[in-house]
Parts: sequence; structure tokens; C-alpha cells
Amino acid sequence: MSARLICWIMAMFVMVLTPGAKAEDGYDLWLRYPKAQGVALSGLSRHSESLLAPGQSSTAILARDELVRGIQGLTGRPPQSVTAIQGGTIWLATATDSPELAKLSLGLGKLGREGYVIRSVSVGGKAVTVIAADADQGLLYGVFGYLRLVQTAQPLDKIAVRSVPRMGLRLLNHWDNLNGTVERGYAGQSIWDWWRLPDWKGPRYADYARANASIGINGTVLNNVNASSDSLTAPYIAKSAALADVFRPYGIKVYLSARWTAPMEIGGLKTADPLDPQVAAWWKAKADEIYRAIPDFGGFLVKANSEGQPGPQDYKRTHADGANMLAAAVKPHGGIVMWRAFVYAHDNPDDRAKQAYADFKPLDGKFADNVLVQVKNGAIDFQPREPFHPLFGAMPKTPLMMEFQITKEYLGQSTHLTYLGPLFEEALKSDTFARGKGSTVAKVIDGSLDGHKLTGIAGVANIGADRDWSGSIFNQADWYAFGRFAWDPDASAETVAREWTAQTFTADPQFVEPVVKMMMGSREAAVNYMTPLGLSHIMGTGHHHGPAPWVSELARPEWNPVYYHRADAEGIGFDRTKTGSNAIAQYAPALARRLADPKTTPERDLLWFHHVGWDYRLASGETLWNSLVQHYDAGVAYVGGMQATWSSLRPYVDPVRFAETEAFLKIQAREARWWRDACIAYFQAISKRPLPAGAAAPEHPLLWYKAQSFPHAPGNP
Amino acid sequence: MSARLICWIMAMFVMVLTPGAKAEDGYDLWLRYPKAQGVALSGLSRHSESLLAPGQSSTAILARDELVRGIQGLTGRPPQSVTAIQGGTIWLATATDSPELAKLSLGLGKLGREGYVIRSVSVGGKAVTVIAADADQGLLYGVFGYLRLVQTAQPLDKIAVRSVPRMGLRLLNHWDNLNGTVERGYAGQSIWDWWRLPDWKGPRYADYARANASIGINGTVLNNVNASSDSLTAPYIAKSAALADVFRPYGIKVYLSARWTAPMEIGGLKTADPLDPQVAAWWKAKADEIYRAIPDFGGFLVKANSEGQPGPQDYKRTHADGANMLAAAVKPHGGIVMWRAFVYAHDNPDDRAKQAYADFKPLDGKFADNVLVQVKNGAIDFQPREPFHPLFGAMPKTPLMMEFQITKEYLGQSTHLTYLGPLFEEALKSDTFARGKGSTVAKVIDGSLDGHKLTGIAGVANIGADRDWSGSIFNQADWYAFGRFAWDPDASAETVAREWTAQTFTADPQFVEPVVKMMMGSREAAVNYMTPLGLSHIMGTGHHHGPAPWVSELARPEWNPVYYHRADAEGIGFDRTKTGSNAIAQYAPALARRLADPKTTPERDLLWFHHVGWDYRLASGETLWNSLVQHYDAGVAYVGGMQATWSSLRPYVDPVRFAETEAFLKIQAREARWWRDACIAYFQAISKRPLPAGAAAPEHPLLWYKAQSFPHAPGNP
Repeated sequence: MSARLICWIMAMFVMVLTPGAKAEDGYDLWLRYPKAQGVALSGLSRHSESLLAPGQSSTAILARDELVRGIQGLTGRPPQSVTAIQGGTIWLATATDSPELAKLSLGLGKLGREGYVIRSVSVGGKAVTVIAADADQGLLYGVFGYLRLVQTAQPLDKIAVRSVPRMGLRLLNHWDNLNGTVERGYAGQSIWDWWRLPDWKGPRYADYARANASIGINGTVLNNVNASSDSLTAPYIAKSAALADVFRPYGIKVYLSARWTAPMEIGGLKTADPLDPQVAAWWKAKADEIYRAIPDFGGFLVKANSEGQPGPQDYKRTHADGANMLAAAVKPHGGIVMWRAFVYAHDNPDDRAKQAYADFKPLDGKFADNVLVQVKNGAIDFQPREPFHPLFGAMPKTPLMMEFQITKEYLGQSTHLTYLGPLFEEALKSDTFARGKGSTVAKVIDGSLDGHKLTGIAGVANIGADRDWSGSIFNQADWYAFGRFAWDPDASAETVAREWTAQTFTADPQFVEPVVKMMMGSREAAVNYMTPLGLSHIMGTGHHHGPAPWVSELARPEWNPVYYHRADAEGIGFDRTKTGSNAIAQYAPALARRLADPKTTPERDLLWFHHVGWDYRLASGETLWNSLVQHYDAGVAYVGGMQATWSSLRPYVDPVRFAETEAFLKIQAREARWWRDACIAYFQAISKRPLPAGAAAPEHPLLWYKAQSFPHAPGNP
Repeated sequence: MSARLICWIMAMFVMVLTPGAKAEDGYDLWLRYPKAQGVALSGLSRHSESLLAPGQSSTAILARDELVRGIQGLTGRPPQSVTAIQGGTIWLATATDSPELAKLSLGLGKLGREGYVIRSVSVGGKAVTVIAADADQGLLYGVFGYLRLVQTAQPLDKIAVRSVPRMGLRLLNHWDNLNGTVERGYAGQSIWDWWRLPDWKGPRYADYARANASIGINGTVLNNVNASSDSLTAPYIAKSAALADVFRPYGIKVYLSARWTAPMEIGGLKTADPLDPQVAAWWKAKADEIYRAIPDFGGFLVKANSEGQPGPQDYKRTHADGANMLAAAVKPHGGIVMWRAFVYAHDNPDDRAKQAYADFKPLDGKFADNVLVQVKNGAIDFQPREPFHPLFGAMPKTPLMMEFQITKEYLGQSTHLTYLGPLFEEALKSDTFARGKGSTVAKVIDGSLDGHKLTGIAGVANIGADRDWSGSIFNQADWYAFGRFAWDPDASAETVAREWTAQTFTADPQFVEPVVKMMMGSREAAVNYMTPLGLSHIMGTGHHHGPAPWVSELARPEWNPVYYHRADAEGIGFDRTKTGSNAIAQYAPALARRLADPKTTPERDLLWFHHVGWDYRLASGETLWNSLVQHYDAGVAYVGGMQATWSSLRPYVDPVRFAETEAFLKIQAREARWWRDACIAYFQAISKRPLPAGAAAPEHPLLWYKAQSFPHAPGNP
């Protein structure tokens, strides 16, 4: 056979397969494993010639298959399967699988169920890469860790990685309704096909589990915290059980949001009083029923006495009474209860930012030992920026669980590129001063500050049935980042962005560096064009899309933007010092002292804590008014910069993902300008000050902005 | 290079490409173009060695690219592009592109804009396949026609096909709401991403247009007939225009459903009276505005004075008054109005089946010449079986447009395999006797019976954002069949099923024949297990899922199943003869005479027209009661047979599509049994007759069936 004929045959293969070649539509997330190039390719090929993977559990097989898939994608050929070490072998095993691993001093036995080590070792003179763990789950995480190393161009000759997750519960919260809608979802319908479960389990469920396992997520709350009791009926338990069966080998447990009044709505009881023995018995029987179908069911998440949801306070009982009753029901099965601290009451005239603390702080020490209190990162509601929630550090006897929002209800929804890594990092690094300097929120939630074993973090998912899962390619980065910060709350947003970018697009530094730079400033840009200098909650009513600082007529005071910014002829901002709501007293004294004075308050939080005159001078010497306008301008300018950056990167990106991002940046640029113009038009009508030199007048008069309406905006509850 | 090495290289290619190979998830519909085998492959290869395609319009280029894509997929290599005839050339051209075509006596010049010819010819001794048309649109249809021929294993040596669509308007009606929900949609959210249009036009829009073009659909009504006025505002016109831009090269025009009261809701007028000059002026200006954005806008579809929708009758005007006012607005631009005849009124005590005829028949001759009246196939509402609508044949001076429902609101929604081809065929072949025997519904709507040039057919789409477009693989067949019947209302459901099966799965007769057989009986099976012998409308309230013949308490009489079946101690069925509602008088006398007597009424429609005693003897000699039960049993048994057939076909189908169909058939089997048992339990409580020998008792008591509830069923309005 001639070389020419061979070439022809090869060309034929390429052609045959081209029409079937998959367009990049975002479905593969950061798990694309594209063919590596040059040094990276030869390095990986040399270190992955063969695979020794004796494990036989379903999880061990998933780990092995993932490694084969990754290496095959990256090098173009699968590693040879071997039963003994050769040169260039990857040895994927627990000590149970391969007792010989014990000789290698890998530190096995202390990794727990989920930790792993990856080490370059020499065995009998042969170069071997060991991926080892104490349990099969650790093997799966180790494989994803190894593939991440490989794709971020780490040298593969001397790997010495030991990784154990810092938090026990790393959960997604799906605000998905049983009818397929997703509250605050911007990525299409729910991926849970409740209607056709349990009969039909489509391939997407396993893809979901795999993606989550790749970033260490180990649990998922399937249904909205604004829950329907129906999710606890027998047909829906069977549906959840079907999902749990798919997720189990990936190390992902299923949890459910519990509707407080389920005993009445589906149980026929007359009350949902947590101290009523019939109620407790109903929940115990319900838990038993669930555990019969889902032996490793994780437990319940509860939104009670919050935004119209029923709860124990309806019966003059405390949140602890409620949580502990539920906790007793799941305790025999090893389950837990996550009780949300997101509460504020229509009949409570106090500062909304203070109410959760006021309700929960007195309950510290009163919760059962399988209860976590789940606290949003800030005291209001997932704003572009909030100071950390005062409950962090204030309940040392209670395991507090962090609740982040991955879905970008307030940060541009599906179209704005606003990478949340810096928000996660900022919140987790915040110092509560609860036990002196260095008492970071990260240390509160990882249990190290107060000695808790039960630890957790939750992210409100941004996942839907859209082909790209998250509504945009760049929104995928927020899902990824949440997983990485859940694994290690001291992670670096920049490193995480770099990992994500390299895996999602290409490891080429000509692409990665500008993209990471763009991502890293993008959340601050959103803060600037939406709510600079500590402003918050001035978005449109209901859908939360776009600016509406003028809204003042809603029934409850704390639903109105004017409640939050308090702009008047003198100045702007919410006085949370002693002269105002004194919310600062909920922080540790060392911190409260600094927050008492605008001069020692971080400027980024200034208007969160202080009502400040329009002519107040900031550190820069600029007046508050001028600086406010300049922040708005900086936000708009940053988006323009992102557009320019992205335009320059066309050669590195496939056409559809390039075009989508380009289109979304165009929307973001228009909407950033809209935010800026609307807010300036409104605030200027109050401040009555001229715009600083060089600042453009708003494009339209204020009335135009007020007249905008969006009856079909997505994500409404 | 050794043969072994070559094999290794080839194997490597296979391996390299395997991870990227596309799983069969249904997205490619009937346009997969899988590699042909054996004789078919060599025949096609011989006849597609090269391609002469001089056309340069965007549509001509789409046609050429589709042909290349098809041949490349089917043969493994693209045809060589040539500028002169060779042996094995496909010549794709209009006479404008290639004046030499005129010498071939192809009958060009009479094909219209959409027709085409495909002919095997000899040009200078060279075997050539000509795909020719009078316009580029015909070329595109010709290419799809050719690829269909190829894939259904037609001999390629002597092709002589001439095909011109019998109907002018071949439209999908999307009941899609602006918030992304789809009324009676069972395939996920709307594929229209209204929120991010016009900025982002994802690749799915072109894929949608291509799929529709492949079956000859040439228009699409984007929004629900229960319309929001917002779709006529400037932002939404821009969004529709963006879609129109994508669809245009595929020959697909955009239409909009018009909300009657839009002049009040978005125009600020005080009335929507069609005879008010301000109202007419508003619509004229609105039409002008739309045509500025969409120069080839198709026109309006209107649901007026129906199920709560406003309309001209609110102002004591007729449907013709309303339609003609709108028609005048679009007339200068060449637009049309499709006015729906689906009307019935809450304050009209007459048989619901008679009301549309009563409203519209007197208006025959009163409609402007760019109005079509759009009539559902039956007089009630898309039931598993209905006799043809009495308006067909009754309005000779008015172009009547057929409205079929492709989405299976009443035929098992997303999970039952109930191929609609036989329903379409049955309706279109129905003889109205309007001008004597042979006056079929097909001849009414194709204009041949009464000499209309303006002709059309609409199908309520079953398309959503689900990866497989239609909620199940087999539901895709209904979309396909609608297109084929729209092109040729005398098509054969069986031929269409065979085409679809061969293209969607494999042309292997071992697979095609049993699947076609299964499909062909599937709709009759649904009739049997749901509404045999002319029963109708006994489904669950609201969601229309499952049986509920007992429902009798809804506010309007004609919303209740008991209104339709009228079962009592004596018998069952709706007397529509002279002794009853006399609806039969709405049919042509020759037909009405036959329907007056149960003995000359087709048994399949018996209970539609007659109230018949339980012990009435059918032609078989069996009593009505026994036969009713036997029909229910036959329906259930058929589904069991489909399960067995499908199980035997595993070797022919890829895993995901096999598993999905298997799972859905399991659901269908369970639900067929549920329908049968619930209906028998209910009717037996009334008939008080024993089950015939061998018939199983219902699994549960009647109360159990009545207690079922489905609050989260999909597709609710």
C-alpha cells in the first residue's frame, strides 16, 4: 500500500467523521479534553502510556473511565490497560485495591472518604504517577484533579499534590419548581424532567453528576426552597430516588426542600406545630419512607417564616424548635437539616439587614447536632456587593453553612459577563474578628474557628435545560468557581479563573491571560455600573432586571429601592450606625468600631453603613457625588474594554461560542449604560449637582427610564 | 509501511474521534445522513461523483451545501465541484443559472416558485442527475427531495420526479408565549429566546428553518393564538425581524398572532371596533411598521371571540368585519389574514359542535380576498378521532385553511407513540359530498373543489427546546408527516412513515417494516384505549392528561366530559340527529342522510352522532357495551404489541434513542391500561352490565381513578 493511498485513507476517515464532529455548543463545559499540543502533549503522552486501575466499584470504574476519556482526548490515544507497573504508568488505586501502595509513604489513611494524593514516584526504577485515595470517591476526585493539572500545563514529572476538601457538605440548591420552571433561573427550564421520571432517566442526569463531581460537589437539593408539599408525596419520592440512583456513583447525595405545612397539605393533619407529637410522628414516618427509597438521602433544606413561607413561628415556636423536630426525624438515618437564616418580617419595622441576626443569634446553642443554619453571604439578598452577614462569627455553637447565589439574579442574569470568583473570595476572606483578627468567614464555615465537624456550603444553581447549562458560556465559570471554593474556601479567584479558561477554551496563554484579566475585573465593573460605593437593592421590581432606584410604592417598605439608598437633598446611604439602625452593633466590637466612622469604613461599603453628604470628600479628595458618577462611568468603560478584548480573541475561539459571547457583551454594554444613565438621572434629580467634568449626560430623561417595563422577563418566581 | 501499521493508524483515527462522535440524541431529526451501505452506497456514489451548481443566491447556496452535506454523510465523500458536465454529475440549477437546461424538456416554466423536477438524463452520453426548478426555492426543495429518494432506496438510474406543492401556505402555528412557556407544549420551553433576541441568534434557529424546509413548510406563526399585544410592540417586532432574517433563505415567512384589543392595550385607543376608522388606521400603521422591519412578513393569525379572547363580536360586528379590516391593513404589502373558526360561546346553549358552522357559514362570500378561514379538522377540538368539520365544503366562496394539531394534546402528549399520519390522511380523505361524491376535504383546502388560488394548511407545532425538538423521537414523525401532507394532501400515511423511519433510523427493511406497521396502527390504538366508537373529550380537566369521563361540575356545560358521552342507564353517545342537536344537518344532504341512521353511520363515529343503547347490536353482532370494552382491550393490547416489537429491534437502534422509546412505551402501556380501566369502571357503574367474557376487571375501584390528580402536568395554558 502506497503512502499516498494511506494518506487518502486517513483523509477519508477525517472526512467521514467531519459531518458528525460536534460543534462547540457549551454542553461539554470544562470537560472537553481537546487535543493537547507540543510539549504538553509529549509530556502527557510519556506519563500516561499505561494505566493500572484495579478498582472494581462503580465509582472506581467511573474514575478509570474518566481518566481514559481525558487522556484519549488530550493525547489522541487511550492509555494501555496493564496489571503491573511499567514505565509511564498511571497507578489509580486505593490501598485496598493495591496493598503495595503502602510502601510509597503517600500519607494514606488520613485522606478521608474524599481526599486524594497525586504523586510522581519511581517504582523499581520506573516513572509512575500515582493517584491514590483512601476511598473510591477520592479516586474519582483525584482523576479530575489530575486532568486539571494536566490541562493547566503543570509539569508532570514531579507532581506532589495532596488534596482534602475543607468542607463536608458542598451542595447545589436548585430553585426548581415541579412544573419545570426555575425561580431566578436564566438557563431555560429545569433539567429535572419530573413528569417523565422515574420511567425515563435521560443521559443528561449523568452528565450533570459528572460535571459536579469534577469540581467536588457532593450534594444537590432538587427542589425550590419555596417548596411544594407534593415533592414529599410517594410519586415524587420515587422520582427523586431515580435521580439519586444516577448520582450515587458520582458521590452526590440528594436532598429535598421541605414545605413546613406538608403535614397539613399532604398528611391530613390540622397543624404543623413542631411540638405537636402527631406532627413529629408524621415527619418521622415521612423520613423513614424517604430513606426506604433513598438509603443515602442527605436531608432537608428549609425556608421557614420567610417571604410568606409558613414556619414554626406561626405556632409561636422558634426556628430551633422547628429545625430540631425535623432533625430528629432524619437523625436515625444519618440525615441533616439545613435551616435557612434568610428571614425578615413584614411586621418588623427594624432594618431588614438586622432581622436574621435578631432572630437567630439568641438561638445559638439550641440547635440539634445535625442541624446547620444556612446563611446568605450578606444580610440583604445576594447583591452585587454586600458586607459579610453579621451572623458569621456570631453563633459559635452552631455550624453555619454559607449560601452563595451562583445564578446571577442581581448580577446581569444570563447575559452579563460578571465572574463571581472575586465575590466568593471577598466574602470568604472577610474578617469577622469574632476571635480576633484572622477570624475569616472561611474559618467560620470550615469549622476551624469554633471546632465544628459538621460543615457546609451551598450555591443556588445556575443550571437549566439550555444546551450550555448555565445560560451563557461565561456563567459556567461561576458554577465551576463555586465548586472550587467549596472544596477550598481559601482558593484564589484568579487561579480558578485560569483553570476554568484553560479547560473551557484553550490553555494558550495568549488567550488565557487576557480572558482571566477580563473576568477578574468584571464583577467590580457590575458593582460600579449598578450599585457603587455600597449601594444596594435598586433594581427593577419582581424580575430584578435593570435599574429602578425610584421605586417607592410597593406594599412593604423593604421591598422599595428608596428604603435602601435613602437619597435626599443632603446625601445618600443607609445609616446603620448608632444614629441610624445601629446594624453595625451586630458585628464584633473591633469591626463595629471601624464601621462606626465613614472615614474608617471601606469606601466600597460606605453607603451600606452611612448616610453621607453629596459633597463629602472621599480619600481621593473627590466629592461623593462626583465619585459616584465616576464609578458608574468606570463600570461602563470596563465593559467596553471587555468587548475590545474579546474581539481581539476571535482566532482562539470556535465560532458559536465566540459569537454568543460577543452578542452578550453587546447587551451588557447597552445595559451597563442604561444602569448608569438611569441611576445618574435619578440621583441627579435629588442631588441637584452638576455632573463632573467629562461625564456624559444620560441619554434619556428620567421619565423615559421610569417608563421601561419588562413583563416577560425570565426567572420570576 | 506495513498493512498492520496502516490498520493501527486507522484504528487510532477511529479511537481519536470516538470521544467526539456525536451521540444520537434526536437533534438531527430525519436529517442524519448516516453512511449508506452496500448497493445503495455504490449506486449513490456512482451518481454523485460531481456537482454542477452554478446558483449564487443565498438559497441556491443552501441547496448546494445541503446536497454536499447529504452526499458526504451518505457516501463518505463530498461530490467534486465542477463547472461542466461529467459522468455521474448532479446538475443543480434553474434555467436562469443554466440556460442549457432548456434543451432537456424538463417542463420548466410551470413549476412555480417552489416546485422542482429530478430527472436522470443523458447529456452528451454522460449520465447526469438533474435537479432543476424555476426558482431557487424549488432547488432547495429539490435537494431535500433527492436526498429523500436516495435514503428511501429508490433506484437512482431512472429518476423522473416532478413535484409541485398542492397548497400555497404550509404553516406551523406555535402556541408559544413571550415568557417562554408553550401552551400544550410537551417538549420543553419555547425555542424562541425572545429575551435575548434580536442581539443573540443562536444556531438553533437555522436548524429549525432547515428542518422545516426539508419537508416544505414555508411559514411559521411565532406566537400563541392566545396572543399578547406585546408581540406587536417595536421591541418584539425587531425580535421577529431577526428570526425572519434567519428563516428567509430557507423560504420560510414569519407570521404573527394578533391580539384583537392591541389597539387599546398598546395603542391607547378606547375601542377595538373594526369599523372605527381610528382602529383601522392603527392597524394599518402597525402593518406598515411591521413591513418596514420584515418586508416579506406573511400576515396575521387571529383567534377572536373564542375561549375568552376579545373580538369584533364584542362590538356587535361579525368575524368578517374583523378579518376584512385587518386584511385591508396588510393587503398593500401582499399580506394575508388567517381567521380561526374555532369559536364557541358560553352563553350559547346549542351543541358546541354546531357553533362554528352557525357563526361562519352565513359569512361565506363576505371575506376579503386575502383572508382565509382556518378550520380545525373536527368540530370539537383535536380529539383522537373526530368526523371532519362541517365547515369543509360549506363555504365554497371562502378559502378554508386546515388546522391540524401536531402537538399531541389529546393523544398522549410527549410519551405515547401515536403516529398522526393516519389521522391526517383520514381527515383529508373525508368526503364532504359538497359537490357530489369525491369532494374530499383535501380538494376543499387545495382550492381545486371551488377554484381558490389562496390555499393553506396549518399545524400546531410540537416543537420545543428539548434536545429532540418534539419531546420524543417518535413525535418527530408527526412534524415530518405534517409537512409531507401539507405538500401533498393526498399523501399516504404509510409511505410517509416509511420515509421518516428510513431517514431517522436506518433504511434496513428488517427495521423499517415492523416500525412502520407499529406506527400505522398506533393512532387507532389510542382511539381504542381513550375514546373508542366515536366517544370524545373525556380527558382530565385543564392538563388534558388521562381519563376523567366522570367530570360534570365545571362551570360551562361543554367543558364537562359528561356533556360529550351522555352515558345513562339506557345507553351512551351524543344524539346529533333530528331527535337531538341535529348537527348532522350541517353536512351535505347525501352525507347527512347516512349519518341519520346508526346503521349507516361508520361505527368509528357511532357515539359521536348517536345515543345508542348498551345492548344495541353492532355489525359484528356484539352488543355495544361488550364492544366498547373490547375496543378498550384492543387498544391496551396493541401497546403491548408495540413494546414487543420495539424490544426486538434493539440491534438496529443506538442506545439512547432505543432506551427512550422503550421507557415511553412502558409509560404508554401503563397509561393505556389506566385509561381503559378508569373508563370501564366509570361506564360500568352506569351501564350496570357485566364485562364480556375474558375481560379483566379494572385494577382499582372507580374512586381511586377519580382521586388521581396532576397539579404539575406540562402544557397547561
